[in-house]
Amino acid sequence: MTKDASELPEVPDQVTNQVADEPEIPEQLSAALNSLSPSDALRELLSLSPQARLDALLALSPALAANLLAQAPNETAVEIVGHLEPDRAAEILALLQSDVQADLIGELGTSGAEAILSELEFESASEIRRLSAYDGDTAGGLMMAEVFRFREADTVGKVLRDIASADDDFERYRGQHPYITDDNGHLKGVASLRGLLTAKRSATLQSIMTVPISVSVDTRLDELEDLFDAHPFLGLPAVDDFGVLVGVVARSAVAEAVLERAETQSLKRQGLVGDELRSMPLWLRSRRRLAWLSANIVLNIIAASVISAYEATLAAVIALAVFLPMVSDMSGCSGNQAVAVTMRELSLGLVRPIDAFRVWLKEISVGVINGIALGLLIGLVAWLWKGIPALGLVIGLALALNTMLAVSIGGVVPLLLKRIGQDPAVASGPLLTTVTDMAGFFFVLSFATVMMPWLVK
Amino acid sequence: MTKDASELPEVPDQVTNQVADEPEIPEQLSAALNSLSPSDALRELLSLSPQARLDALLALSPALAANLLAQAPNETAVEIVGHLEPDRAAEILALLQSDVQADLIGELGTSGAEAILSELEFESASEIRRLSAYDGDTAGGLMMAEVFRFREADTVGKVLRDIASADDDFERYRGQHPYITDDNGHLKGVASLRGLLTAKRSATLQSIMTVPISVSVDTRLDELEDLFDAHPFLGLPAVDDFGVLVGVVARSAVAEAVLERAETQSLKRQGLVGDELRSMPLWLRSRRRLAWLSANIVLNIIAASVISAYEATLAAVIALAVFLPMVSDMSGCSGNQAVAVTMRELSLGLVRPIDAFRVWLKEISVGVINGIALGLLIGLVAWLWKGIPALGLVIGLALALNTMLAVSIGGVVPLLLKRIGQDPAVASGPLLTTVTDMAGFFFVLSFATVMMPWLVK
Repeated sequence: MTKDASELPEVPDQVTNQVADEPEIPEQLSAALNSLSPSDALRELLSLSPQARLDALLALSPALAANLLAQAPNETAVEIVGHLEPDRAAEILALLQSDVQADLIGELGTSGAEAILSELEFESASEIRRLSAYDGDTAGGLMMAEVFRFREADTVGKVLRDIASADDDFERYRGQHPYITDDNGHLKGVASLRGLLTAKRSATLQSIMTVPISVSVDTRLDELEDLFDAHPFLGLPAVDDFGVLVGVVARSAVAEAVLERAETQSLKRQGLVGDELRSMPLWLRSRRRLAWLSANIVLNIIAASVISAYEATLAAVIALAVFLPMVSDMSGCSGNQAVAVTMRELSLGLVRPIDAFRVWLKEISVGVINGIALGLLIGLVAWLWKGIPALGLVIGLALALNTMLAVSIGGVVPLLLKRIGQDPAVASGPLLTTVTDMAGFFFVLSFATVMMPWLVK
Repeated sequence: MTKDASELPEVPDQVTNQVADEPEIPEQLSAALNSLSPSDALRELLSLSPQARLDALLALSPALAANLLAQAPNETAVEIVGHLEPDRAAEILALLQSDVQADLIGELGTSGAEAILSELEFESASEIRRLSAYDGDTAGGLMMAEVFRFREADTVGKVLRDIASADDDFERYRGQHPYITDDNGHLKGVASLRGLLTAKRSATLQSIMTVPISVSVDTRLDELEDLFDAHPFLGLPAVDDFGVLVGVVARSAVAEAVLERAETQSLKRQGLVGDELRSMPLWLRSRRRLAWLSANIVLNIIAASVISAYEATLAAVIALAVFLPMVSDMSGCSGNQAVAVTMRELSLGLVRPIDAFRVWLKEISVGVINGIALGLLIGLVAWLWKGIPALGLVIGLALALNTMLAVSIGGVVPLLLKRIGQDPAVASGPLLTTVTDMAGFFFVLSFATVMMPWLVK
């Protein structure tokens, strides 16, 4: 807390322009980036061509480059690190927190990762290897290996001297309490600030420590979120299967992981797997989006085959074609609302897969009301627009039924997908839309076939 | 950090069942809720009928009730508090942090809020009134009024005694550093832990304090996010227009607000304004969803009028009706992908409204590639399915052009909406879909009209 508020950079427009105008001079560019706030600097960096981006990073101080990498979305950071020379990458990597290091190394290909790790000191390299082996959504994947660690026989005075020592960069512990282990590294206790300040300096930590709440390296994100909600701690110590203290999960790391999960889900619902950013190569962005769109085209063809089966009915009452997209689109919207509510309740932990029936009861109530309301509305529109009362009946009834079907599927499908171990964010939407399209077309065209005598004037 | 890990509750299934099975006995229910983890307890509470929920809350200890309220999504908490008797609501409210208090009071109606505030002590009531006046997405709306506050003439010894004092609940400051003001409350400095531990106990705070980074009560969420990204602090002091220290913004409050914004946006894209939870009253959920769906129906009618204008073409080539929903739906999906990427880049601060042209260039490149790929695919399908080469040409060309149009609109519209002060999360989707529907229908049917001689066998 030593920086002066006046050091905070203003963001003058001319600096921003300077970045865009003179990408050919890396030194000037890095000076300009230096004067921006982290998020402005990151935006300017990402707006450069891949080559100019690398040149700029090489001209930046390793500290600033590390800062920008830590800010960048994970995929971008991985891409940038992958393009740097291993020694330069290692130099920047060494300045990052161990959890960020492990994320980056974990997502680089094996050969790229090893090239960089071989440039690092043996100790940090093996620590990064160890951390990158954990699943990203567990305490092991989220923890940092830097632990403010003491032995039972250490004195209060030693802790206070460590805190006060200018040599030790206290901030890298992000506000941890002192954790106390036995000689074999087993977590034994934690010392509170109050305990440290009220005890004699000669007291051993063993005499003032309390039993800490700890997590296993396998503890999952949901449970970590719960623990941090329930307790005001800034970090929780993580132990391995033998009770050895191996890291500390920071509250901020959990909060960031939860935010990222929410954003990834919202992207996945549009078929965007991974973090697409416009700074990524064109072919990659194109290919990723196409993968999902092509699968979607197949589902669309299946749905369209229902229309194809009723071409005779359509030919007799061509006005039906006007309302087909409307019925399927409106039901799709109703169903997507139900999907969104379920996804949110899932992420808040307010609903579980076994609650599917309860959720369906809640959704079908809304579906009946909204189905009748929308059916009446669109039925009236169809009748008045085309002047055929029976058309209004066919379209209105089809939309009402299809709305009820859509909210039922939309509310429940994410839970069923989750139960069978599929990712509900990816599959719910396409599944829902295909069924509501097919059912919508079928309702309209089969009702029309039955009502044909009243439809043809 | 005094609780034992063994105190952490397991969640036995029978307890969960007990909650569901015996909602008529509030005491047993609250005992059962007591034994659950906060998020499990909240889920059980929300799954009860509104009356049973109130009964359960009345039987709970105020501390547990406060804990559950602090966990609950904001709208739910407001609804629950609104149904409690004012004295009971005040009793629970008094146990919450000042920022949570202010959020709840701010969203209750005036009369409900005043009834509760009149039950509180004058001092806390006026503090809550003051806090609830700030915009929720500013430092003023996010800060807590509890400040670990000292005068310049106070000694280091006084701070250490305050920290060590068992009377003072140190945890409610959530790890703040001691902030130092002059006699008129103007923020003058901050004391680091290291400064406190290395200085003599008789030293004044004035002699060891450093100039803090502070924010104004009007500082917006984006800027706060940037500051916490750039600095490792757990809190930032907030000052009013006169430089008076009025509160502290905690890192955790900012992280929570960012997460909430991301989730709200994802819901808004489906036309769910406000935090819908299935525990809310049926009529409210129905009405909110219908509001957006009804607006959507009008847009659908506008799009459908394009089909209606070409009924003669459709009647001549009935197979066109099979492909109309496919073309509009596929383009809608492509456009929504572009919307999702822009919304994400907006929330990451990687793109600004003035970057619209740059974004368009990036999108149209993807649009041309994907448009040609999808157009060829669907053109081939149409040709082979219906055996008419010209039909393949019409459908393929329409989808290719409409995909390019859709990604252009999808990438840029959120930025334009943001520039004119509209919420891009709400309006982007419906705007996009209406335009891509209309354009898709128009492309297919107008090309077909021109190509009629080759379409009719």
